[in-house]
Amino acid sequence: MYDTPGVLVDVAVMDRNIQRAQTAATAAGVRLRPHIKTHKSTVLAGMQLEAGAAGLTCATLSEAVGLSDAGVGGDLFVAVPFYPSPSKLARIDRLLEAGCDLALAVDSLSVAGLLAIRYPNGGPRLIVEVDSGAHRTGVPPTETVSVASACGDLFGGVFTHGGHGYPPGMAVAAGADEVRVLADAKDRIEAAGRRVTVISAGSTPTAAHCVGGPVNEIRPGTYIFGDWQQVSNGSVTIADVAVTVMATVISTPSAGRFVLDCGAKILSKDQPAWVEGYGHLPEIPGAIIERLYDNHAVVSTGGDRPPMVGEQFRVIPNHVCPVINLVDQLLLSTGEVISVDLRGHLS
Amino acid sequence: MYDTPGVLVDVAVMDRNIQRAQTAATAAGVRLRPHIKTHKSTVLAGMQLEAGAAGLTCATLSEAVGLSDAGVGGDLFVAVPFYPSPSKLARIDRLLEAGCDLALAVDSLSVAGLLAIRYPNGGPRLIVEVDSGAHRTGVPPTETVSVASACGDLFGGVFTHGGHGYPPGMAVAAGADEVRVLADAKDRIEAAGRRVTVISAGSTPTAAHCVGGPVNEIRPGTYIFGDWQQVSNGSVTIADVAVTVMATVISTPSAGRFVLDCGAKILSKDQPAWVEGYGHLPEIPGAIIERLYDNHAVVSTGGDRPPMVGEQFRVIPNHVCPVINLVDQLLLSTGEVISVDLRGHLS
Repeated sequence: MYDTPGVLVDVAVMDRNIQRAQTAATAAGVRLRPHIKTHKSTVLAGMQLEAGAAGLTCATLSEAVGLSDAGVGGDLFVAVPFYPSPSKLARIDRLLEAGCDLALAVDSLSVAGLLAIRYPNGGPRLIVEVDSGAHRTGVPPTETVSVASACGDLFGGVFTHGGHGYPPGMAVAAGADEVRVLADAKDRIEAAGRRVTVISAGSTPTAAHCVGGPVNEIRPGTYIFGDWQQVSNGSVTIADVAVTVMATVISTPSAGRFVLDCGAKILSKDQPAWVEGYGHLPEIPGAIIERLYDNHAVVSTGGDRPPMVGEQFRVIPNHVCPVINLVDQLLLSTGEVISVDLRGHLS
Repeated sequence: MYDTPGVLVDVAVMDRNIQRAQTAATAAGVRLRPHIKTHKSTVLAGMQLEAGAAGLTCATLSEAVGLSDAGVGGDLFVAVPFYPSPSKLARIDRLLEAGCDLALAVDSLSVAGLLAIRYPNGGPRLIVEVDSGAHRTGVPPTETVSVASACGDLFGGVFTHGGHGYPPGMAVAAGADEVRVLADAKDRIEAAGRRVTVISAGSTPTAAHCVGGPVNEIRPGTYIFGDWQQVSNGSVTIADVAVTVMATVISTPSAGRFVLDCGAKILSKDQPAWVEGYGHLPEIPGAIIERLYDNHAVVSTGGDRPPMVGEQFRVIPNHVCPVINLVDQLLLSTGEVISVDLRGHLS
């Protein structure tokens, strides 16, 4: 009986996911740079490197420092633009002093210019973000030349995140968008006389659809664990899901409804538009997690037998990244426990 | 310049919220038992006790153990039903050994019976949850007699959570529902020959609307900080909001849109149906946080001037409880830092 709620990792499935992604990247001739925001664990980052990853992607400079301190931060890309406040600059300096080959996302003239002035003799490589259709951060290809120019000698390449490839049926087109905008940006920047070394794209849905052309690096994250939104959009199969939240039935207050102890403080309220409910119960496929409170998940049974108080079920979370960030440790199927030692690390 | 993203607490506002709730409870003749799941801090729990709180409410036995270990766990109510697995029973025993006056939520015959057998000579007091309309956990008043009977000598009282009082305009009716079902349950249980000592109700929206009758204890949590959903439903004013998330503009990719570094890993994706966007920017009231990714908040400016990369803004979160649970420390307006030492503590 598990002490619930908690996160359980099937190690055999995770290992297979790590190997399969590495094999595919190698076959496609691109560097695999896994995004560690999914697992937030320096142990798992080390396993990805050992399997052949060329380096790691992270979302914050705090995560980068954590990777470096743990000895797995030799080659890092912080893939979210940031403003170089004193605390952020101190982290960059610390990483450079540790010998990290550090790449940083930029998408504005002001930040590119500030970093170029701050590091006149070299330092971090700056990778310009291009918007390929997600309309989050990133500039259009036409604006990449001026941002690259503002980077000066720190300029290292271009990257994009085809986040619009997540809904079902969108991955192939989004992968093509990634290739198109990066090729366009590369041509423009090279025509302006700069060498474009890094051409980086690819999320878990789009990674297979952005290779074979100019892209030389992919940055999937979720592939290591899988989750219900990736099953629902066809990026992975349910057999590829390595993480489940273990939960216990704490209440069966009326026919057709039961309550699990995995609330929003472990499942998170992430719910893509194309997914019903707040997670999937493989053992009761018709059940729907209708409502989520901090410490309660209210489930409709979907016509199946109502479970008993005390029964335990596994829940495949909709989006695994925020779930891992809500726990301090992962219980492995081997019985071992590993620390989510980069949990938090927001800044 | 703040190291963002992070959580900032206005201590003067928080102190006023603590005092005001205590004064109101005292005037109404009820015990105030604040729910600590909002702040997850033993320091702030101690401040609530010092202001006159009769005891504390928590959501999990792990939180209860954390309160006890910190010396503020003398009188606790764990207000979420649970299944008494070996690990949960070990926590109960530890709390009892520490001398805690411990009350536990039950809403099933099986759990009530198991605990009655486990503690034949007394131990925790069991408080039966009644459903007053939220349809989450809890039984109808008619079923409380049998659950109370299964509790045996451990039976201590009844409680409810009028969670249906959160949408705008619903608090008064939900508070009345809380009173009605608890009075009904009390009458039935007393008619069956048992004494009902605890009659507990009241959330931040309903606390003012459930007193004056049989209710002798209220359990609001959010009142200490306030949040945007409580402003939006009229439970608190914007001047009562003590917590904001400090964020920095990291990208201004196109006219009318900017991106903050406060993603779902600090704001959470909590979004009640009656609230637009994922938080409120008091300094740009027309702005709407349209989309939230793990580390990005995409904001439409609402016609106001587009901010510059590097500008910092405060965001009032929709729901403060999951936000606090995502950070390790709170920056106080006094410059001090306090630990969210009960963060996590899910089981």
